[in-house]
Order: sequence, then C-alpha cells, then structure tokens
Amino acid sequence: MFRPKQRLFYLCKMQVTAGQIAELVGGSVAGDPYVKISGPSRIEEGKPGTITFLANPKYKEHIYSTRASVVLVDHGFVADGDINATLIRVENVYAALAVLMARFNIGLSLTQGIASSAIIHQNVQIGDEVSIDDHVIIRSGVVIGDSCRIYGQVFVGDNVKIGAHCTIYPGVKIYHNCVIGDRCVIHANTVIGSDGFGFTPDENGNFVKIPQTGNVVIEDYVEIGSNVVIDRASIGSTLIKKGVKLDNLIQIAHNVTIGENTVIAAQSGVAGSARIGAGCMIGGQVGIVGHIEVADGVMIQAQSGVASSVKTKGAKVYGSPALDYQNYLKSYALFRRLPELAASLSELKSKVDKLLVKT
Amino acid sequence: MFRPKQRLFYLCKMQVTAGQIAELVGGSVAGDPYVKISGPSRIEEGKPGTITFLANPKYKEHIYSTRASVVLVDHGFVADGDINATLIRVENVYAALAVLMARFNIGLSLTQGIASSAIIHQNVQIGDEVSIDDHVIIRSGVVIGDSCRIYGQVFVGDNVKIGAHCTIYPGVKIYHNCVIGDRCVIHANTVIGSDGFGFTPDENGNFVKIPQTGNVVIEDYVEIGSNVVIDRASIGSTLIKKGVKLDNLIQIAHNVTIGENTVIAAQSGVAGSARIGAGCMIGGQVGIVGHIEVADGVMIQAQSGVASSVKTKGAKVYGSPALDYQNYLKSYALFRRLPELAASLSELKSKVDKLLVKT
Amino acid sequence: MFRPKQRLFYLCKMQVTAGQIAELVGGSVAGDPYVKISGPSRIEEGKPGTITFLANPKYKEHIYSTRASVVLVDHGFVADGDINATLIRVENVYAALAVLMARFNIGLSLTQGIASSAIIHQNVQIGDEVSIDDHVIIRSGVVIGDSCRIYGQVFVGDNVKIGAHCTIYPGVKIYHNCVIGDRCVIHANTVIGSDGFGFTPDENGNFVKIPQTGNVVIEDYVEIGSNVVIDRASIGSTLIKKGVKLDNLIQIAHNVTIGENTVIAAQSGVAGSARIGAGCMIGGQVGIVGHIEVADGVMIQAQSGVASSVKTKGAKVYGSPALDYQNYLKSYALFRRLPELAASLSELKSKVDKLLVKT
Repeated sequence: MFRPKQRLFYLCKMQVTAGQIAELVGGSVAGDPYVKISGPSRIEEGKPGTITFLANPKYKEHIYSTRASVVLVDHGFVADGDINATLIRVENVYAALAVLMARFNIGLSLTQGIASSAIIHQNVQIGDEVSIDDHVIIRSGVVIGDSCRIYGQVFVGDNVKIGAHCTIYPGVKIYHNCVIGDRCVIHANTVIGSDGFGFTPDENGNFVKIPQTGNVVIEDYVEIGSNVVIDRASIGSTLIKKGVKLDNLIQIAHNVTIGENTVIAAQSGVAGSARIGAGCMIGGQVGIVGHIEVADGVMIQAQSGVASSVKTKGAKVYGSPALDYQNYLKSYALFRRLPELAASLSELKSKVDKLLVKT
Repeated sequence: MFRPKQRLFYLCKMQVTAGQIAELVGGSVAGDPYVKISGPSRIEEGKPGTITFLANPKYKEHIYSTRASVVLVDHGFVADGDINATLIRVENVYAALAVLMARFNIGLSLTQGIASSAIIHQNVQIGDEVSIDDHVIIRSGVVIGDSCRIYGQVFVGDNVKIGAHCTIYPGVKIYHNCVIGDRCVIHANTVIGSDGFGFTPDENGNFVKIPQTGNVVIEDYVEIGSNVVIDRASIGSTLIKKGVKLDNLIQIAHNVTIGENTVIAAQSGVAGSARIGAGCMIGGQVGIVGHIEVADGVMIQAQSGVASSVKTKGAKVYGSPALDYQNYLKSYALFRRLPELAASLSELKSKVDKLLVKT
Repeated sequence: MFRPKQRLFYLCKMQVTAGQIAELVGGSVAGDPYVKISGPSRIEEGKPGTITFLANPKYKEHIYSTRASVVLVDHGFVADGDINATLIRVENVYAALAVLMARFNIGLSLTQGIASSAIIHQNVQIGDEVSIDDHVIIRSGVVIGDSCRIYGQVFVGDNVKIGAHCTIYPGVKIYHNCVIGDRCVIHANTVIGSDGFGFTPDENGNFVKIPQTGNVVIEDYVEIGSNVVIDRASIGSTLIKKGVKLDNLIQIAHNVTIGENTVIAAQSGVAGSARIGAGCMIGGQVGIVGHIEVADGVMIQAQSGVASSVKTKGAKVYGSPALDYQNYLKSYALFRRLPELAASLSELKSKVDKLLVKT
C-alpha cells in the first residue's frame, strides 16, 4: 500500500525564525519575525511552520489563503486583501529562494575518494578532493579537475578533460576526446560525444558511414539535464558555450554551436551545423534545421520548427515552419475561424451571382 | 549473415489444446477443441500450431486467410466468410490475451538474492524475496519492499523508498528521497528525480540555479517506459498517481501532477507545475505548457500543444495550440483547401470590380 | 577556467602530403601535391597544414577564403574566383571523406578480451576476438559473434543473439531474446526490447498489462544512435531491416517494421504495428501513427504527423496531419497571408452590400 506520509519525510530538520531568514536573504520582515520555520512548502498547500514564496503572479490568489507561516515576496508586492502569513520582502524572489534553498538542500550523497569498484585506467590525472563513485569507468588519458563529483556507473572515455567543480550524475556516458569546462552539471544517463548522424549512399544505395572524428566541447557553468544527447562533430567540435542550460531529452547534432547563456527546454532538437546565438530562449519540443543561424536573444515558442535562419536579434518566432510570433498568432486566430470565413465567402458568392444575373 | 530462423527461437515450448486454453481464459470453443498449440503468432502471418487473436477490426480480413490454428475473438464476432481456424470466443479479447500470455511469457531472468557485485550502503532495509542484480548501487537509508526485482546497473539514491513487488529494469537511476509505491514497473535507463529545470538570471544575465529540494512520488501500479525523465519538485513533490502508464522518452517536469489511470504515449512532455487530471488519454509527442490544468478524462491528439487549461471533463483537443478536436479537423480541412478558397476570393473580386464599373 | 586550446588536442599526429591523400581517395590534385597535412579542419575555420572539404554548396563562398591547405571537391566543381588551397578532385566528396577520415579516426579504446569486472552468466557463447569491457552483464544463453566490441556497463539479457563485428557502446540495455545481426552499431544508453506499451482497461477502469512476449530483430548493417528505445513486439518481432540508420532519441513501438536502408532523424517516433517501407527518408521529430503503412522511398518532412497510410512510392509529405509536400507549402503560404485574405474578404463584403443597396 502507498503511504502518503512518506512524501515529506525527507525535509531536513531546520528550525529558524523569519527574522533569521530575512537576514540570510537580505530581506525585510512584515509581520512576526519570531515565527519558527522547519521547512519549505508550496503556496497552495502550505502548512504552519513552513516557508513558501510568491514569484509567479498566477499564484497570487493563494497568498490570502495559504497556511504557510512565511511567504517570500517581491519588494513591489501590494496586497489586495488580508494576509495571515509573515512576509519577507526581497529584491528578487527567485534569487532569495536560491540562497534559502541551498541552505536546506540535501543532495545525493557521495563518499569522498575513489570507490574500490571504480575502474581507473592508466595515465589518468585526478585533481584534489574528487569523488568517484562505484562502477565508474575512467579510461586512459583522462584529466579530472579539483572537487569533481562523479556518480555511479558513469563512463568517461579516453582523453576526456573535465574541469574543476563538476558534478556528473549516475549513468552519464562521455565518449573519447570530449572537453568539459569548470562547474558544469550533467544529469543522469545523458550521452556526450556519440557519433554524429552522417552517412553517404554508395552506388548500390547502401549507406556508408562518414567517420565522426571531432569531439564535443562544453564550456564553463553549463548545466545539462537527463537523457540528453550531444553528438561529436564530424570534424572540429560541437560547441556548448559558457552558461548554457539544457533541459532533459534534448538532441544536439554534430557541429552545432549553442551560444552563451542560451536556455533550451525539454525535448527540443538542433540539427547538424546549426549555429544558435547567445541568450536565446528556446521552448520545449522545438526543432531547428541544420546549417542555419539563429541570432542572439531570439525567443522560439514551444513546438516551433525553425526552417531558415533567424537574423534579427531578439526576434520572437512561432509555428512550423516558424513565422514572426505575432503574425503566427494572427494567422492561427483566423485558422480557427476558417469555417466561418469559408461560409462567408460562399454566401458572398451567391449574392454576387444574383447581382450578375440582375445586371 | 543474418539468420532469420533465429527470430522465433525464443518461443517457449508449450503444448496445449484449444480446449485447455478456452478453460484458462473462460471462453467457448467453436471448432476443434483438440487442436494443439505450441506458441503465439500474429494473425497476418500465423502458422499451424499457433494461436492468434482478433481485437482490432482493421485486421478482420486476416481471419479468413490466417494459417494459425486458433483465433481468440470477441463473443459478438460475426464471420462474413469461411474460417479454417478454431475460434475461442471470450468476453474481452485483450484481457483473455493477458491471461494467456502471462502463461507463455518468459521474462528477463534474475538470480534471487543480492549479487556480490552490487554495492549496498549502510542503513538499508531490504524486504523478503528481493533480487538485486550485479553492479546495482543502493545508497544509505533506502527501503525496498518485499519481492522487488532490481536489475543490473540500477542506481538508487539516498533515502529512496520502493514499495513491494516492483520491477526496476537495467540502468534506471533514481535520485535521493524519491518514493515509489507498490507493484510499479520502471523500464531501462529511465531517470527519476533529477533536478527540475529552474534558473533565475542574475544582474549580469547569467543564470543562477534554483535548488530543487523536493522529490518525485510515484504511487502504486504505475508503469513507466524506457528513457523517460521525471524531474524532482523544486519544493514538495512531482506526483504520479495510482495506475498511471507512461510510454518511452517522456518528459515530466518539476512539480507536475499526473492524475490516476492517465495514460501518456511516447515522447510527450508536461512542463512545470501542470496538473493533469485522472483518466486522461494523451497521444504521442504532445506538449503541455506549465502551470495549467487539464480536467479528468481529457483526450489529447498526438503532436498537440496544450497552451491553456482544458476545463471540460472528457474534452477532446487537437492542434498546436490545441483546439476542440472537431473544430481543428474542420479548420484543417479548409487549410488544405486554402489555395482553392484564395482563388475563389480572387475571382469574386474581379466580378465585383466589373459590377462596380458597370453601376 | 575553460582553456580553448584543449579543443584540438585530440587530433592525431598524421603527416601526409596532398599527393598521398589523392592516391588514397582516388582523386586528382590541382595545386601543390607536396603540401603537408597534419589533420582535418572545417572549411570556415581551416588552418594551414589541414585538409577540409566542400560538399554542401551553401559553404562554397568559404573556399575562396579558407586557410586550409587542401580542399576535397567534386570533379564537377568550377571556381568563381581565386583559390589559395590545393584542390583534390574526387567523384564523391563524402565517400572520399569517409575513406580519409577512417585513416585519421581514433575511436573509443577497448581492451581486448573479457574485463575481470564483467559478469558472464552460464551457457554463453562468445566468438573470436571479442572485447567485453568492465561492468558489462551478459546473462545466460547469449551468443556473441566474432570481433564484437561491447563497452562498459552494457546489459545483454537472456538468450540475446548478437552477430559478428558489432559495436555496442556504453550503457546500452538489450532485453532477453532480442536478435542483432552482423556489423551493427548501437550507441550509448539505447534500450532494445523493453516492453511495448499495451494495456487493456478492466471493469473498474484500471489498466491491465498485456504481456509483451515477442522480441526485437535487428538485421545486418544497422546503426542506432544514443538514448533510442525500440520496444519488443507483443507477439512476434519488432523488425529493423538491413541497413537502417536511426538517429538519437527515437521511439520505435512494438511490432513496427522499418524497411531496408530507411533513415530516420532524431526524436521521431513510430507507433505500434506501423510498417515503414525501404529507402524512406524521415526527418526529425516526425510522428507516425500505429497500424498504417508507408510505401518505399517516401520522404517525410521534419515535425510531420503521418496519420494515415502513404501508399505512393517516393511520395513527399509534410504537415500534421501530413499532406502532399507541395500542397502543404501552398496552403501554409496562404496561412501566412490569412490576415490579408480575411481583410480582402471583409472589404469585398462591404462593396457587395453597397451594390445590393443600389440595385
């Protein structure tokens, strides 16, 4: 039988006051600064003794009914009704939350040092304070920077370089010669550096493989979700620049470049040799065809199909193939009304035909 | 060289009569109850000595030509021609098939007990008759219920609770603090509890991670396919309710709730904090945006993009963004005819222009 | 700190002349046959001492500015300006590249023989010159052909047959009874033979599993990307025919057949019992519904949804649901112009109304 009480067993046993939290996050208290907090909660199901937050305006209504004892809100927050909770006003709710949560977070544990069941091949350089978990395989020529955490069943191929302070979660597979920068996080079962999809038909119509001799280069501060695939370049490098954040189940094909601080949501795919600019926001399930360029700061709506270069910085696009965002919405609004428009056209036609008979 | 004869080598050596099968599934025989069956087959390629079934009416034509010796059919089945096979009439073909196949099924084997290469950390509670295969890692604080089968190279993070009678296939990774109910099945290389995708920009436009402190809670009787990802909640739980069935390569983002007995086909994705009702049927490659609600019993056509809450129970939707199913089909039928409609509009325009000249 | 110099460290130390390369690939030299080459480069960022190629006409402009010393071009290539590089003219640039790259390629290393941490169950037949890496699990009854390379943390279920000269990359999971032909390549963390998605509702609306008793059969010369899932058949076999190439993150449901030499791009999905013909080209993120047939040589544009059988060989389709490719483009061009067409219709209506008043 399923025992719902187990759901919250994992909350750590913190016991702090609203005032102490406000100090921690640099906020100001409105209400009781002595109320005691023992864990976080969601605003719509908050319990006494917990802290929650209001960042997304869609959830504003819940602040009047939440049973949480403390709510983190923006400095600019204006109440439209009575609030029972103590408020902590901060400059940026999410940033404050990040600080706060880091205090409460208990991550996946990992014994320091190298587990006895890990296989470390010859000629490997391992930095200080590195943890390598059970059943990991590190092949020869690998370099691992200081303070890396490599979880169970990870595979690191020949000559891979991993920078300092990286976390590689269980089951990640990194093929030979790939390069990972500092402070990167790669989630479970993601594959880095498998062969790009390149074949050429021979005279009999069978496909001959084009060897994929390049690698994948991931710069500093990149975070990659679970079950992602980033293929190695045919020649040169598939390049994921500094600060990029990739969600789960994403496909990055060979020779792609993703610009700095670009964020891509789950299940999107970027085809071979496409070059995505910096600071782009790409929704889920987007497809981007090969050999095109997307300018900096472009926003691509979920499920769009980008079939040609987007050259305007900061453009917003939508649809498959993708159009200007507003234009797509206008066209789609009329797509919905097509039965009405067709009827109107048909009616007009009979009127004109009658007029033609008369004249 | 590929040897096609190997394809069927795996059929187990059963040898039963149509009459015995009818008894097993509670059906009635029309034809020879003594015909011997040694394995299952597909209706369009059936061989003498095998049993097949007719459930989907699309395959009805094959019943007149199949060489299978026995066909499972519905009580209401009416033949339009001569049938050579013996029929077994049952109330529910699929349910009968399930009973029948369970008899013939030989699953992935697993030695009882704990393999010597498995790594079991301290403070782990393991129930009776549990099998833990080679190269599994079970971290500290884990509780595993009776009769669980945990295949090779699985990783179970700290404090995870797994109910009784669960099957966890090879390579599954379960992060810390997640909770799994009784009689759940999780297929290979699926990831449960990796970090939700939450970042907030700092003053320099770099993204700062919002710690994901929650967990994933999976209730009883849930089955999850291969290479799925279910992210842990930022706060609280991502919740997969009783009886949910998820196909392969699905993305479930942080703080999502999936209602009881909802079924989701492959490669669909549900964005953060969306709440999906009970008994929904969601097709493949569907995208559902974050922070919306989908009512109970809603049917979502494959490849649809659900961009706003669907409040009507049992609604059928289609399109991206999704519309009422019938309305989408009507609009799409006219989308196909747009060249014709545009021509018609253009012709009408010239007629009117001529009329205007005349008057 | 990220050190970009590391990006090219992996290039092997070859040192050959343009003339020697021309001989290797059967091409003719235009320019200096004695120029020395020490590695490959991309045409847009080529460096002296490297060889690059021009195959896609989109990149033609770069041939006039590339700093690479040698460029592989087609026999038919005609220069529109001055070229500094030495050219090697060949019949097929990609085929020549394949030959050339195979010479420079240094793959993922693997110690010959069976690693001591690999678990090999009883009754396993292993051919000559097979390598089985660390933490691999081979269950009983498995047959592995000559010269196979099985990388770390792979799982091979009971009675699986693998032909000769196969490469199975790290973390692949193959369920029991599946059959793989000769010279196949399966990339990291792909799952072969997990259960098809089959459930039938009982009288209470709960879903009962339909046992999936079949297997997956993969013929010779098939290459499969990373994090792909191919489900086993409910009865019989899911069949991937000779020479098929599957990109990453693809879903192949139970009982599907994929015809010879068909190529499928990343993140596409094929639903249960669909039969795809030979020589098809299927773009990325395509969805194909169950129980339909797609004829030989059909081309399906990325993100299309194929909802009914495509019976014409060589047909090109696009859209969701998919239409004839040209017709989709015509309709979509008018979809973009819908605001204009609606305005035009509205204007025409007022004109007609005025005419009607007059007459």
